[in-house]
Amino acid sequence: MRAVNILRRKRDGHALDGSEIDAFVRGVTSGEWPEYQAAALLMAIVLRGMNANETAHLTKAMVDSGARLRWDDIPGPKVDKHSTGGVGDKTSLILAPLAAACGCVVPMMSGRGLGHTGGTLDKLEAIPGFRVDLAQEQIWSVLKKAGCAIVGQSKHVAPADKILYALRDVTATVESTPLITASILSKKIAEGIDALVMDVKCGHGAFMKTRADAKTLAESIVATGRKNNVRTEALITAMDAPLGRMVGNALEVHEAIDTLKGHGPRDVEVLTIALTSAMVLLGGLANSLQHAETKVRAALASGAALERFRAMVEAQSGDSGIVDDPKKVVVAPRQILVRAERSGYVCTIHAEYVGLATMLLGAGRDRVEDAVDHSVGACMLALPGDPVKTGDALVEVFYRNDARLPEVLIVLQKAWRIDDEPPAETPLILESIT
Amino acid sequence: MRAVNILRRKRDGHALDGSEIDAFVRGVTSGEWPEYQAAALLMAIVLRGMNANETAHLTKAMVDSGARLRWDDIPGPKVDKHSTGGVGDKTSLILAPLAAACGCVVPMMSGRGLGHTGGTLDKLEAIPGFRVDLAQEQIWSVLKKAGCAIVGQSKHVAPADKILYALRDVTATVESTPLITASILSKKIAEGIDALVMDVKCGHGAFMKTRADAKTLAESIVATGRKNNVRTEALITAMDAPLGRMVGNALEVHEAIDTLKGHGPRDVEVLTIALTSAMVLLGGLANSLQHAETKVRAALASGAALERFRAMVEAQSGDSGIVDDPKKVVVAPRQILVRAERSGYVCTIHAEYVGLATMLLGAGRDRVEDAVDHSVGACMLALPGDPVKTGDALVEVFYRNDARLPEVLIVLQKAWRIDDEPPAETPLILESIT
Repeated sequence: MRAVNILRRKRDGHALDGSEIDAFVRGVTSGEWPEYQAAALLMAIVLRGMNANETAHLTKAMVDSGARLRWDDIPGPKVDKHSTGGVGDKTSLILAPLAAACGCVVPMMSGRGLGHTGGTLDKLEAIPGFRVDLAQEQIWSVLKKAGCAIVGQSKHVAPADKILYALRDVTATVESTPLITASILSKKIAEGIDALVMDVKCGHGAFMKTRADAKTLAESIVATGRKNNVRTEALITAMDAPLGRMVGNALEVHEAIDTLKGHGPRDVEVLTIALTSAMVLLGGLANSLQHAETKVRAALASGAALERFRAMVEAQSGDSGIVDDPKKVVVAPRQILVRAERSGYVCTIHAEYVGLATMLLGAGRDRVEDAVDHSVGACMLALPGDPVKTGDALVEVFYRNDARLPEVLIVLQKAWRIDDEPPAETPLILESIT
Repeated sequence: MRAVNILRRKRDGHALDGSEIDAFVRGVTSGEWPEYQAAALLMAIVLRGMNANETAHLTKAMVDSGARLRWDDIPGPKVDKHSTGGVGDKTSLILAPLAAACGCVVPMMSGRGLGHTGGTLDKLEAIPGFRVDLAQEQIWSVLKKAGCAIVGQSKHVAPADKILYALRDVTATVESTPLITASILSKKIAEGIDALVMDVKCGHGAFMKTRADAKTLAESIVATGRKNNVRTEALITAMDAPLGRMVGNALEVHEAIDTLKGHGPRDVEVLTIALTSAMVLLGGLANSLQHAETKVRAALASGAALERFRAMVEAQSGDSGIVDDPKKVVVAPRQILVRAERSGYVCTIHAEYVGLATMLLGAGRDRVEDAVDHSVGACMLALPGDPVKTGDALVEVFYRNDARLPEVLIVLQKAWRIDDEPPAETPLILESIT
């Protein structure tokens, strides 16, 4: 099958058949297809699209380009959650042990932060000793002990995705629903899961800025997951303001532990319970969403989830003493407050600005190779809806050196919009796509 | 200027500005742009198009990627003709000396045949000693002596086109009006011409199968030529049946000499006179098309064109004795006739089949690196409209070895369609685009 014929068919708007998609993915993985042919096909896919069958087949071919993990000898449904990325989103740290406490097995492979959004692996590495680069046997052992593991992506998983992702980044072919769907799902399906809950973030601080775009991606992911025999549900959730009060790796670990202890911020708890309940239901561990939510709330209230978290930290070589003494997760020694320049109500907090500010502090990466300072970040003191007076503290900045501090303070000041009237209440969970 | 931003703009359907197009063409020529980025942009251009200004600027940037020839010290308008390629099209051999005899200077850079269409350089190389690979000083000398030269393309001319053309071939990005326009015109404009007549072939045997496609390309070429200060006209001409009776390099030289002597086939003469008249008019050497045509017919009838041809052959190291003794242009020693299998009228001769048959004989190339046998070809004995009886000769095949002869004969038999009724007369020159 000649590459140029496959290119021509997609260029002319035809649907590719399974053997054509296989030839593309195999050719890219083996290096038999030159990058220029792969790049031209990616651009044709961006502009011509792919139907549901093509997207499902592309996803499967990308899974089959590498290893698919199996956990047959660990009892219980294998269920994971994935998010399109937000600011202050520490739900994975809470949800993985919470779902495990309800009977799910959660073999979560996660990523690092890039740009204004944080990464789960960076957060966990704020815990002294915590290791995310585990071999499959080690993951197996963590799952046996804790029921959940949060690790980095093995290079044996979906190698085609790594090649295509790098190529898409330099050829302006990132923005394509079928390509995004296949990239996300190929990595998740290769984890060996039975069910997946997808958190599609929507808003200023998210990759998907509009509800329509978020819904299109959510529907594509749900349809593609199902065609690949993974029970899939997507929640579309708001990402205008950051989630919770804490942004920054160590600070977010603190907030996750607080939430596991039952006194986290309301929005973090609401979102985590919604996502975990969906996991429990999809995993077949409850016969209704209400039943699932009851189980999830019970596992949180009883401390069972906290114990799973402790077990996971310990199994992944981390200092589990942090659970009882969170100060062991060190935050930056210097603090400064950003204060309100007028009185009124906090109307919005622009998540992208907060993410950018903490990235400038060193909490995140501008480029993949940048190092991260786990201790820096921001604690939001005035949240949307809160009344403030001129001079009130809006946000406490935790920093190590003041090289870029002036910039950070300006960006944070801009992130808060204060109005005369309190904002209308907006829901956190916008829609469920099943 | 980052390549990925340029890619993103074209992907999203925006018009690129001059500096963006320059960055692309310079990047491709210098190798600074990796092939995958060039390929992705080519696909985006195929699917998003380019407006008239973008196409004109792309053409200019491709001209500027190499040398632009100058003939300032040779008096007379510099005028050329280019065709999109047909079967049996030997007009360049007649038209270049004919236009020169009327006062034009014709610095024609031509190409070789590929697939079912022949190439002017291959035809000229059927003349003993004829050289097409001339340096600029040598071309200058030929132009001084003959007023016309037909040579191969210098590697200094439009190097960006060579790189892009090779990449388009393997990325299914050939079929794009702006890219075809820029490819053709960049090479022609770099010849240092003032005016160009474009022969856009249309029909079964042509690259453009439909009148609408031919018109789109013709209009694009005319607009782009003008924006680059080259007076440009396009004739859309029929290419269903082959042009003339002869197909094959040596045979076509014979037919060109016959036409220069005033006894060529009517269609060859009609097309050549039309194209040359347009050249003479565009070159400012006549004040009306009728005036131009009168001059052209006079130059043909007086033998002035034939003398220019003789001078060009001699100046390009060929044996000019062929003009008086065409047998010196050797044809293949063996002949076989293909005969009519029914009685009736020749309705059509499928040019693509005739081109394919002569390519199989060795007259053309399947791949760029193939060698050509100049002596083989076909002489059509029954033309569209001719009445034939079962067993009458349709075409005489000139061949050297019979390895692929059975195939050739089957393809040629299929090329003739014989019906009960004579076909409607169809015009050769369909439209002029100015």
